[in-house]
Amino acid sequence: ESVTSIDEEVAKLLELKAQLGGDDGKHQFVLKTAKGTRDYNPKQMAIREKVFNTIIGCFKRHGAETIDTPVFELKETLTGKYGEDSKLIYDLKDQGGELLSLRYDLTVPFARYLAMNKITNIKRYHIAKVYRRDNPAMTRGRYREFYQCDFDIAGQYDAMIPDAECLKIVHEILSELDLGDFRIKVNDRRILDGMFAVCGVPDEKFRTICSTVDKLDKMAWEDVKKEMVNEKGLSEEAADQIGEYVSMQGGRDLAERLLQDPKMSQSKQACAGLSDIKLLFSYLELFQVTDKVVFDLSLARGLDYYTGIIYEAVLTQAGESVSVGSVAGGGRYDGLVGMFDPKGRKVPCVGVSIGIERIFSIMEQKAEASAEKVRTTEVQVMVASAQKNLLEERLKLVTELWNAGIKAEVMYKKNPKLLSQLQHCEESGIPLVAILGEQELKDGVVKLRVVATREEVRSIHSAHIMFVLSHTDTQICLDSNETLKVCM
Amino acid sequence: ESVTSIDEEVAKLLELKAQLGGDDGKHQFVLKTAKGTRDYNPKQMAIREKVFNTIIGCFKRHGAETIDTPVFELKETLTGKYGEDSKLIYDLKDQGGELLSLRYDLTVPFARYLAMNKITNIKRYHIAKVYRRDNPAMTRGRYREFYQCDFDIAGQYDAMIPDAECLKIVHEILSELDLGDFRIKVNDRRILDGMFAVCGVPDEKFRTICSTVDKLDKMAWEDVKKEMVNEKGLSEEAADQIGEYVSMQGGRDLAERLLQDPKMSQSKQACAGLSDIKLLFSYLELFQVTDKVVFDLSLARGLDYYTGIIYEAVLTQAGESVSVGSVAGGGRYDGLVGMFDPKGRKVPCVGVSIGIERIFSIMEQKAEASAEKVRTTEVQVMVASAQKNLLEERLKLVTELWNAGIKAEVMYKKNPKLLSQLQHCEESGIPLVAILGEQELKDGVVKLRVVATREEVRSIHSAHIMFVLSHTDTQICLDSNETLKVCM
Repeated sequence: ESVTSIDEEVAKLLELKAQLGGDDGKHQFVLKTAKGTRDYNPKQMAIREKVFNTIIGCFKRHGAETIDTPVFELKETLTGKYGEDSKLIYDLKDQGGELLSLRYDLTVPFARYLAMNKITNIKRYHIAKVYRRDNPAMTRGRYREFYQCDFDIAGQYDAMIPDAECLKIVHEILSELDLGDFRIKVNDRRILDGMFAVCGVPDEKFRTICSTVDKLDKMAWEDVKKEMVNEKGLSEEAADQIGEYVSMQGGRDLAERLLQDPKMSQSKQACAGLSDIKLLFSYLELFQVTDKVVFDLSLARGLDYYTGIIYEAVLTQAGESVSVGSVAGGGRYDGLVGMFDPKGRKVPCVGVSIGIERIFSIMEQKAEASAEKVRTTEVQVMVASAQKNLLEERLKLVTELWNAGIKAEVMYKKNPKLLSQLQHCEESGIPLVAILGEQELKDGVVKLRVVATREEVRSIHSAHIMFVLSHTDTQICLDSNETLKVCM
Repeated sequence: ESVTSIDEEVAKLLELKAQLGGDDGKHQFVLKTAKGTRDYNPKQMAIREKVFNTIIGCFKRHGAETIDTPVFELKETLTGKYGEDSKLIYDLKDQGGELLSLRYDLTVPFARYLAMNKITNIKRYHIAKVYRRDNPAMTRGRYREFYQCDFDIAGQYDAMIPDAECLKIVHEILSELDLGDFRIKVNDRRILDGMFAVCGVPDEKFRTICSTVDKLDKMAWEDVKKEMVNEKGLSEEAADQIGEYVSMQGGRDLAERLLQDPKMSQSKQACAGLSDIKLLFSYLELFQVTDKVVFDLSLARGLDYYTGIIYEAVLTQAGESVSVGSVAGGGRYDGLVGMFDPKGRKVPCVGVSIGIERIFSIMEQKAEASAEKVRTTEVQVMVASAQKNLLEERLKLVTELWNAGIKAEVMYKKNPKLLSQLQHCEESGIPLVAILGEQELKDGVVKLRVVATREEVRSIHSAHIMFVLSHTDTQICLDSNETLKVCM
C-alpha cells in the first residue's frame, strides 16, 4: 500500500513539473553531482586505495576469488528480494528494451550469478558500488551511491566452519585498519524466531516484531516496547518476556544456559540455533577471536533473506561501550540462490559485508587530524633544472628514469624557475630532486637533492640514481660521506 | 530528425508492450544479465587485475593522481556533448527527483569536476565503467557496459610537452602489455580543418566530411569518396584533393614538407597544426618513441570536442600492416571545461583513453591459447590432514598462518579425504600442502609437501613454514638434503 501511495505522489509531482514547462523551459544550468552522490578527490582516493588494499589483502589471505557483475540487472531479478525497501530501487527509463534497475546490493546479483552459472561452490569477494534512493545523510556517511565490500562462502559444508571464518575475517580487517576497539555481536535467526514463538508472538508478526527489536541499538527498551505494544499490537506480557531475553549477552556459556531454559528449550528452532552458536564459539576459540565476539539476543538485522547465524560489528568508543555504529555485518542465507534456480535447488551461503563508507569517513577524519600529509602520487624524483634552456636535457633524463621503472616527474614548462620546481616537490611530497645545471651537464653528472633536509650530493651519474631508486620504493637519504643510502 | 523517429518507434513499441499485459501478465522468469552486459568470472577478473596493474603502474610512474565520479550525472550535464551519439545515453526513470543519466564517457564528468571545483591544474587517471545503449557486438568486445581507462593532463603549459607525454604513456603501456607490434597515428584537428578549407569544403560540411574521413581505416578510399560526393554532396574535385592529402603518412619531415605546400600553407590553422606536429616529434625523439609514431593525415576521430592534436594506437598484425583495431586514442580538448564554467573560463586539456576492453579480449585469448593455467587465488599453502578427527588441529595451524600474514586455506569439512584436499590444490594451483597426521602431532611437527613434484619433508616446525612463507611470495621447493628453499 505504501508503494502505491508513493507512486501516486510521484505521478502528481511529475504532472506539476510538466505544467511548469519541464525541460523545455529555460533554466539555470546547475554545476553539481546528483543528489546523494559525490566525487572522490585525489586525497580521498589515496585513503580509499589504502583501505581497499588492507581489505583485499585479507580476502586474498583467506583464498577468495573475485567476480564482477553489471551495475544494472533486469528489474525482475531484484523484484521481491528487499521487502519494503524495494521502493528505494533506482529504475532505468524504459527506452524500448529490457526493464532495468540499478543494483541495490551485491548479494542478490551474487545469488543470480551462482544460479545462472550453476555454481555450487565458491569463496568470492566483490567490491563495487550499489544504489539506493534513500534520504541521503551525507554528513553521517550515508549516500545514494556507495561502495559495498562483500565476502561470501557458498557451498554445502560442515556446520559453522565457513561462518566462523567470516567472523575471523571481520576481526582481522578491523584490527588491521586500527579503527579503535570493536565488538562483534552474534545471534541466529532461528533463535529469534524460537524466542518469538515461546514468548507468544503470533507467526504473522515475527518479521515486524523482528524489525522493532532491530532498533534496540538506537532506542531504549522502553520505546521499543511501546512500539511493539502500541503500534504492532503485541500483548504487554509477550513484550516483557521478549524484553528479558533481548537483554542477555554472553558467550558459549549463555548458549548452554539457554539450552536448559525451560521456555526456550521448548522451541526446536531455538535449540538448533543455540547448538550452532555453541559450535561457532568453539571454532572462534581456535581462530583466536573470542575476545571481541558477543552472543547478543537483541541483534536482529533487517534483511529478509537471513536463515541462520547473523552478526554485526560495531566500534566501541574507548572506555565506554557506547556504539558508534555498525562497520560490518552479515549472516547465513541458505534460501536466496534457490529463488533464482528454475528447479529451486538451494546453495547454502554465508557472508559478510564490510561497511566501507563508514570506514572511509573515519580514515578521512583521522587523516585530517593527523600532522602527516596524505600523498596523492608516488613520485620518487622530480627532474628539475637550475638554468634556462635545459628542457631537452630534462626530458632526456626523465625518459631514462621512466624506462628504468622509476616514478618521476618533470614540469611542462620550457623554463620553469627552480623555486617553483622545488615548491611542487614540497607540496606533493616528492622526496628527491635531480637538478640539472650547465656545470653538471659538462661533467656528465646530476646534482641530487633531498627535499626534506635540503642535503645535496653534487656528482651522481644518472645511472647511479636509477640503480638506487629502482631497487627500493622507500626514501633515500645521504650518509655523512655524502653517499646515497636507503633509509628504511 | 533521427532522434525524433527513434522516439516515435519507442513509443509505438511501448504501447504494444502495454497491450500485451506488460509487467502484470505472468511471464517466464529469465536468468540473464541485461543485454550487452556480462559478468566477469574469477579467471577474467585475474586477467583484468593483471592488465590494470600494468596500466596503473604506468600512470603512477608518470605522477598521476586518481579521482572518481558518480556513475550517473544530471541529465543536463551530458546534454549537447556527444552530438548524434546522444541517443545512446541511458536515462534513469523519473522517480520524482532530478533527471539523471548514466555517464557516457569519463571525459565529460572530468570536465564537470574541474569546472565545479575550479581546478586549473591536474594530472589524473580514472578507470571506471561507462554506458552506451549501442548495438552490442560482444564477440568483438563491444558492450553496453564497459570500462574506460583515461589519463588526462589539465593546465596551461608550454605547447606539446603534455601531449608528448600522453604518447609516451601509450607507448609504454602497449609495450609492457606485450600485445604485439603497434603503431600510433597522429594528426591535428586544425590540420584537418585547414585541409578541408583549402580543398574547398564549405564550412558547414567540415564535421560531416570529417566523420566520413574517419571511416578510412575500415573502408577503401573509393567508397569514402562515394559517400562524400553522393551522400554528403561534396564536389568531385574537392573530394579528389582531400584524397591526395589523406593518403600521406610520415614523420616530422612530412610536417615540414606540408608547411611548404602551396595550398596547405594558405591556411593559418593548418600551419599552426603543422608547426605543433613538428614540435611534438622533437619531444617524441627525446622520449624515444618515434619508432611507433606516424603522422597520418587520414586520422580524424569522431568526437566533437577535440581542438588540436589527436591520436590513435592500432595493433598491427605481425608481418603485414593490417590494423586489428584501435587500442588507445585521445587528443587535445581545450574548450570542454569552459562549457561548464559559468564564466566560460577555459582549462586546456589533453588526454588518452586506453581501449581496455579490447585489451582484455586479447589477453583472454592469449590465456586460452597458453598452456599455463590462470590462477584465480594467491593461496600459498593448504592445511590438510591425513587422518580423521583433526579439524581442531587444522584450524589452529591455519590460524597461525593467517596471523603471520600467509595466504592459507583449509577445507570446510570435519573429515575431508587427503585425496580431495590434494586435488583442490592441483585445481587451484596451490603450491604447498601442510599435512597433519597423528605422528606429526606427537612429534610437534608438520609434513610439508610440494604439490607439483610430490616431494615431502617430514619434520618441519610450523614456525619454520611461517618464516619461509612470510619472506617470499614465490614458490618453495626442496633441495637434495630435503631442506626447504625458495625457487625464484
